[in-house]
Amino acid sequence: MIPFPFRFRRKRRQVRTNPGARARVVIIGGGFGGLQAAKALADAPVQVTLVDRRNHHLFQPLLYQVATAALSPADIAQPIRSVLRGQPNVDVVLADVDAIDVAAKEIVLDDNQQARRLPYDYLILAAGANHAYFGHDEWAPNAPGLKTLEDALDIRRRILLSFEEADREPDPTRRKALMTFVVVGGGPTGVEMAGAIAEIARFSLARDFRHIDTRDARVVLIEASTELLAAFPDRLSQRSLQDLQRLGVDVRFGKPVTAIAPNAVTLGDEVIPANTIVWAAGVQASPLGRSLGVELDRAGRVLVNPDLTVPGHPEIFVIGDMASLKDARGRPLPGVAQVAMQQGAWAAANIQRAIEGKPGRPFRYRDLGNMATIGRNSAVADIRGLRLTGFVAWLAWAVVHILNLIGFRNRVLVGLQWLWSYLTFQRGARLITGAAE
Amino acid sequence: MIPFPFRFRRKRRQVRTNPGARARVVIIGGGFGGLQAAKALADAPVQVTLVDRRNHHLFQPLLYQVATAALSPADIAQPIRSVLRGQPNVDVVLADVDAIDVAAKEIVLDDNQQARRLPYDYLILAAGANHAYFGHDEWAPNAPGLKTLEDALDIRRRILLSFEEADREPDPTRRKALMTFVVVGGGPTGVEMAGAIAEIARFSLARDFRHIDTRDARVVLIEASTELLAAFPDRLSQRSLQDLQRLGVDVRFGKPVTAIAPNAVTLGDEVIPANTIVWAAGVQASPLGRSLGVELDRAGRVLVNPDLTVPGHPEIFVIGDMASLKDARGRPLPGVAQVAMQQGAWAAANIQRAIEGKPGRPFRYRDLGNMATIGRNSAVADIRGLRLTGFVAWLAWAVVHILNLIGFRNRVLVGLQWLWSYLTFQRGARLITGAAE
Repeated sequence: MIPFPFRFRRKRRQVRTNPGARARVVIIGGGFGGLQAAKALADAPVQVTLVDRRNHHLFQPLLYQVATAALSPADIAQPIRSVLRGQPNVDVVLADVDAIDVAAKEIVLDDNQQARRLPYDYLILAAGANHAYFGHDEWAPNAPGLKTLEDALDIRRRILLSFEEADREPDPTRRKALMTFVVVGGGPTGVEMAGAIAEIARFSLARDFRHIDTRDARVVLIEASTELLAAFPDRLSQRSLQDLQRLGVDVRFGKPVTAIAPNAVTLGDEVIPANTIVWAAGVQASPLGRSLGVELDRAGRVLVNPDLTVPGHPEIFVIGDMASLKDARGRPLPGVAQVAMQQGAWAAANIQRAIEGKPGRPFRYRDLGNMATIGRNSAVADIRGLRLTGFVAWLAWAVVHILNLIGFRNRVLVGLQWLWSYLTFQRGARLITGAAE
Repeated sequence: MIPFPFRFRRKRRQVRTNPGARARVVIIGGGFGGLQAAKALADAPVQVTLVDRRNHHLFQPLLYQVATAALSPADIAQPIRSVLRGQPNVDVVLADVDAIDVAAKEIVLDDNQQARRLPYDYLILAAGANHAYFGHDEWAPNAPGLKTLEDALDIRRRILLSFEEADREPDPTRRKALMTFVVVGGGPTGVEMAGAIAEIARFSLARDFRHIDTRDARVVLIEASTELLAAFPDRLSQRSLQDLQRLGVDVRFGKPVTAIAPNAVTLGDEVIPANTIVWAAGVQASPLGRSLGVELDRAGRVLVNPDLTVPGHPEIFVIGDMASLKDARGRPLPGVAQVAMQQGAWAAANIQRAIEGKPGRPFRYRDLGNMATIGRNSAVADIRGLRLTGFVAWLAWAVVHILNLIGFRNRVLVGLQWLWSYLTFQRGARLITGAAE
């Protein structure tokens, strides 16, 4: 589910009501929401501290391409420091946030095992979400999810190693399991992963092995509901299903996963032996929401006020995947970059209004459209009523994503690698790294 | 020390003396030597099995650029399978080799904890070398060496994290140690690492931190002998020293390192507190040489016959960093890609001669030249008597390395990233990944 445009617009709003007082704004998280908020405060009379546990902003919509060996980690990541280099009122701190002390108006950092406190006048909480296993955390080692670069490299290693092991496996049953790939969850990430794995097996690896035919690989996509890409119009959901099936993906609807063993997925009374299992089925908001002491929804998201503040705390804003809010028609806002970025800019604007003594304005979401890609020449896009499929949607998807990457270097490198992959059917980052020695 | 040209030439020599018998050739190692040997056997009446513990061939001369955030791992690596895809008489196996059973003419693979044996008629042993700590293996965790992509990413993480920690360190003594980088060993890798770290501190990071001036960073290069780049003519060694000093690198000669603690290097009676220590001082050949039961030199290399076979075993060839051999003037051949590749082709040719019943020919090394780079616009090159320095050498270095990367994709990507770095003074792969959570 791909929002666009992703561009970080720098808000040029000159507010100099009280130049002596520099309010301290702390932003937790350098994802789409937090980074946008920091940029939007460039000219505000505030001192911003952005805290992230990573040194890089990650362009998550393309993370599945790292997991499927198409791109390198550095192609979709950018150091937060260098993105904000030109903005003198921002300080970037690499640290884990342990807790928020709302009474003292301080956040507690874990700085090399030493607690360090950072005071704030305004706080923007944008720490995102992680994958969740619906109370089955024991599935995590068997079915990794896809949130960080490390996750992506882990999945890449599992996919590529499965083919390597299959090539030297004499037992046909075991070989079949090695060449079975199960993706759990039929949202955008699940659809994109399943399509990409099918393409690797059909095209990229087809001539590389002597003892197996990689085209025999089986990719199973499991969706507990009755349709893929539920956020899209029915016609596009249907089309994504057809496109996946044309790639040979076995899509299973209506039965939830009941167990995940190290080498098998149980689906009702069927057991699917599979060496590689990818989890793309659910997320849980960052546990930092709990330190606020306010009401959360089932996914751990904070039920925020319409102006994105926390009930009882007009100085705390929660945005992006951590916030639970409904749009004008009463539908919950989706957990996508587009929402996070617009909320980041909105929270920044409301902080400026608060400094000026004005009340905050309720957030209004402007839905610019959704896109998801299935594979080569195949995507679906729903852009304000305009519905695209096939090659046109795929081209639109590619252009929108390249334009919205941060940094000229990354745009050129991703564009060239896609062009190369398109022409050669190859994947340029087919490395097995980080394996246990 | 950069050989050129690196290109893997495919040897088109038609030998069909006995088409019924396909001799089995096993090659251990997919580095420069092993890969060249496999390519050179493309048209020989043999069945080749290439075994490597990695799925990729690594272009090691540019590994320091991954360690210093200039390139991504995939830019300098290529799947061995896809390099050899078009060669039907080669099978590639991803596995660790545990031992060589010379009596049975079999190698023993560690295949998922199960021993598996692979018989050979001819064996080419090209498993390379790893860094060695002169009997001080306890230094390894404090001063990582640079041989694998994982090593490079580990060093990259240490360098980038040091600046992050320094930025939030209030204690000046501790901050100074965080901003001190020690490289041990004044060979090509040490010189290249020291120059690259100095450039990161001086240029790439200069505007990114608010609490430190990264240009205050101190880079110390320790060489126990009295000159850098000992394999180069004196004038070039001198020049590399000047170029490093102009970048602010503190070069220390004549005193060997006597101790390496987690955050300090001891040099005689001086202790240099340093958070980041890189080991580039010594190598040790793969322990597989020991399974041959023949004489080894002090660095664990096999003393091979002039035709590259092992004394008493005309069917076993040892090449590259694992072989100890002298050139026509009695000087030991250096452990560089150039030697490994020429020996790979030579071993392949001698195997074909043996199949035809002819005696093997003694290896003759053709030295095409050495190059090492210090930094931006600064390198030294010694090409068959032609001695280049400064910008010209640097340009020659860049062109030779790009041309000798395997694969059009990697050449274009590396070229573009160098161009971008040159124009912007930035490093494109400034990611801290894989850190302990």
